Amino acid sequence: NGVDKGVDFANYFCTYSFLYHQKEMLCDRVRMDAYYNAVFQNKEQFVGKVVLDVGTGSGILAIWSAQAGAKKVYAVEATKMSEHARELVKANGLEGVVEVIEGTVEDINLPEKVDIIISEWMGYFLLRESMFDSVIVARDRWLKPTGAMYPSHARMWLAPIKTGLGDQRINDYESSTDDWHRFLDETNTYYGVDMSVLTRPFCEEQNKYYLQTSIWNNLHPHQLIGIPGIIKEIDCLTATVEEILNVRANISSSITEEKTRLCGFAGWFDVHFRGSKQSPARLEIELTTAPSENNGTHWGQQVFLLHPTPRVGKGDDVLISFSMDRSKENHRLMEVEFGLEMRHLAGRNPQPIKKKFYIE
Amino acid sequence: NGVDKGVDFANYFCTYSFLYHQKEMLCDRVRMDAYYNAVFQNKEQFVGKVVLDVGTGSGILAIWSAQAGAKKVYAVEATKMSEHARELVKANGLEGVVEVIEGTVEDINLPEKVDIIISEWMGYFLLRESMFDSVIVARDRWLKPTGAMYPSHARMWLAPIKTGLGDQRINDYESSTDDWHRFLDETNTYYGVDMSVLTRPFCEEQNKYYLQTSIWNNLHPHQLIGIPGIIKEIDCLTATVEEILNVRANISSSITEEKTRLCGFAGWFDVHFRGSKQSPARLEIELTTAPSENNGTHWGQQVFLLHPTPRVGKGDDVLISFSMDRSKENHRLMEVEFGLEMRHLAGRNPQPIKKKFYIE
Ligand SMILES: Nc1ncnc2c1ncn2[C@@H]1O[C@H](CSCC[C@H](N)C(=O)O)[C@@H](O)[C@H]1O
Ligand SMILES: Nc1ncnc2c1ncn2[C@@H]1O[C@H](CSCC[C@H](N)C(=O)O)[C@@H](O)[C@H]1O
Repeated sequence: NGVDKGVDFANYFCTYSFLYHQKEMLCDRVRMDAYYNAVFQNKEQFVGKVVLDVGTGSGILAIWSAQAGAKKVYAVEATKMSEHARELVKANGLEGVVEVIEGTVEDINLPEKVDIIISEWMGYFLLRESMFDSVIVARDRWLKPTGAMYPSHARMWLAPIKTGLGDQRINDYESSTDDWHRFLDETNTYYGVDMSVLTRPFCEEQNKYYLQTSIWNNLHPHQLIGIPGIIKEIDCLTATVEEILNVRANISSSITEEKTRLCGFAGWFDVHFRGSKQSPARLEIELTTAPSENNGTHWGQQVFLLHPTPRVGKGDDVLISFSMDRSKENHRLMEVEFGLEMRHLAGRNPQPIKKKFYIE
Repeated sequence: NGVDKGVDFANYFCTYSFLYHQKEMLCDRVRMDAYYNAVFQNKEQFVGKVVLDVGTGSGILAIWSAQAGAKKVYAVEATKMSEHARELVKANGLEGVVEVIEGTVEDINLPEKVDIIISEWMGYFLLRESMFDSVIVARDRWLKPTGAMYPSHARMWLAPIKTGLGDQRINDYESSTDDWHRFLDETNTYYGVDMSVLTRPFCEEQNKYYLQTSIWNNLHPHQLIGIPGIIKEIDCLTATVEEILNVRANISSSITEEKTRLCGFAGWFDVHFRGSKQSPARLEIELTTAPSENNGTHWGQQVFLLHPTPRVGKGDDVLISFSMDRSKENHRLMEVEFGLEMRHLAGRNPQPIKKKFYIE
């Protein structure tokens, strides 16, 4: 897809070459528990098998696979983190089983096909980073026809929320534009240049930054004001890049709270570990990044703010037409469009709304 | 020099395409006053002349040059900011004089040679960003033999300082490594993997981040505890890329304060606008980024922290052997090495110290 490798390293891979960043993922107990249980509660699936870990990072999933009894684990990592993974494998006495390979999974070569592909490829709101593309390439090239994917399924969710983030962002935006007008005056007075022609593009830039860029947040379940809906389901064994290039969904969400404001929407994902038809998992494991009181993840949710915030009440329906595409400038970032229509239980329905967002 | 253009855009140019960032520079009164005065206090140098603005950004220096009487101004800008510059030129009625050209100055073509090159190319500690390379290319290609550079001269300074930043950074570093040890325990207990082999690389990574990366700071003049020294002088009319690739200097600084601690060093720069031999500026203008009570700049100073902090007192001499090179991974970032020797007025002199830093 015409991606420059050097640019991709500069923009994307570089952060993964820091232990600090790998540690953030390794400290996410929800994430860790899910993968740990997916492997060790289904140990018999790994015994004697050949496994490929796509994007092994510190090597954790490869090491677990080996500890669970895999015969051989190929642990592929694009960044220099591979060197730390190799050390870690050795220090845990698994250098006979786990082979760490530095390179992108698209570029490397394996001497055999594998029984299981395990990977932690999920970005914010599932698809940010577009790393699942690489997992698909690996699967089509290296997974045996009877092989299993870990995780095996993924879903994207959307729900109406209330939040104070909007007021905060509006304030930030307004103080930025106020400051701009002070700046215009000064530049005119002291430096004899009239910059007012830049007011519109400046406000657009700031509007995009403060109000159209989705926000990372771990919401409290109380902040959900309507029924969450599924906007995408992925079968990791069969999905194609075509299928995940865009996400289009029309859902309707019922407001569950009395008289409130629709501040915006939260997007999140879950994945499941079910093994495959040929070798189903004994115990199905779920990893969810939904709003939760005690089980927040490093993924949090992505918040899309509305402004102004429509009044809604219990029993109202919000019809959401959602679409997500990759950004033209960077295929690992996303552009999202919401089309909204209210179906009020009582009273007139306002005009439909359209709003565009960026997942940066 | 083998730099990938796409990568350079991703790492470097991208920030300049935001009006928000251009505004930060346009709000730096010290910077603005210096360039404004360099142009308008020396108006006669610009009347009827052909000017090239290397990296015009918002267009401000090109517009001033035109307002001062230039016959023609070529305003070259690598990023899409060029479009805003073009609008601004038009809105200020100068589209007959200022021609905005989008492209890197290395790539563009001009129909004539120029009398004056004006550019604001200075990065942190003068040379970060390595943008002066581009000014040199422009000068060698487009400046008439009798032409003038604005600014015409630049210098780098270094001075011993006291600061509380070191304690802060040590705390950050220590809480990060404490946390690492908690993490090791948990990963061992809950997930059966011994990560202790990564302790050394993790601590090195964090040490580099917290203690070996220079820090942006606007110091108060009281924080200088010794005589500042010049470590580099550049004549913008004659300097070659060779000459600015590395900076090597041996200087000695006398401590001017009673019993204190040498917490580290501050690096900054100044530039001068003197015109050229053929057409000297009527009024020489200085732009300094030295520690100052009221005239801080967006460049601030770069602070290099020592740890531990040697005791020093009035009359002691600090012998500094300074060297700065470009980082191998990114030619716009710098690696710095300090060699230090104390010459105490009284008492024994400690062992020489060597310390490496990164300007990121
Ligand atoms: N195409 C590709 N080929 C190889 N590695 C890739 C890749 N795309 C992403 N990666 C790597 O995949 C990792 C994803 S983060 C997950 C790390 C580790 N598996 C864990 O669960 O803790 C990163 O280290 C990233 O550098
Ligand atoms: N090689 C090159 N060719 C063209 N523009 C360049 C360049 N290297 C840097 N630049 C541009 O130079 C600008 C430096 S910042 C200074 C902007 C403006 N002259 C002002 O004084 O306010 C940035 O906008 C950057 O994009």
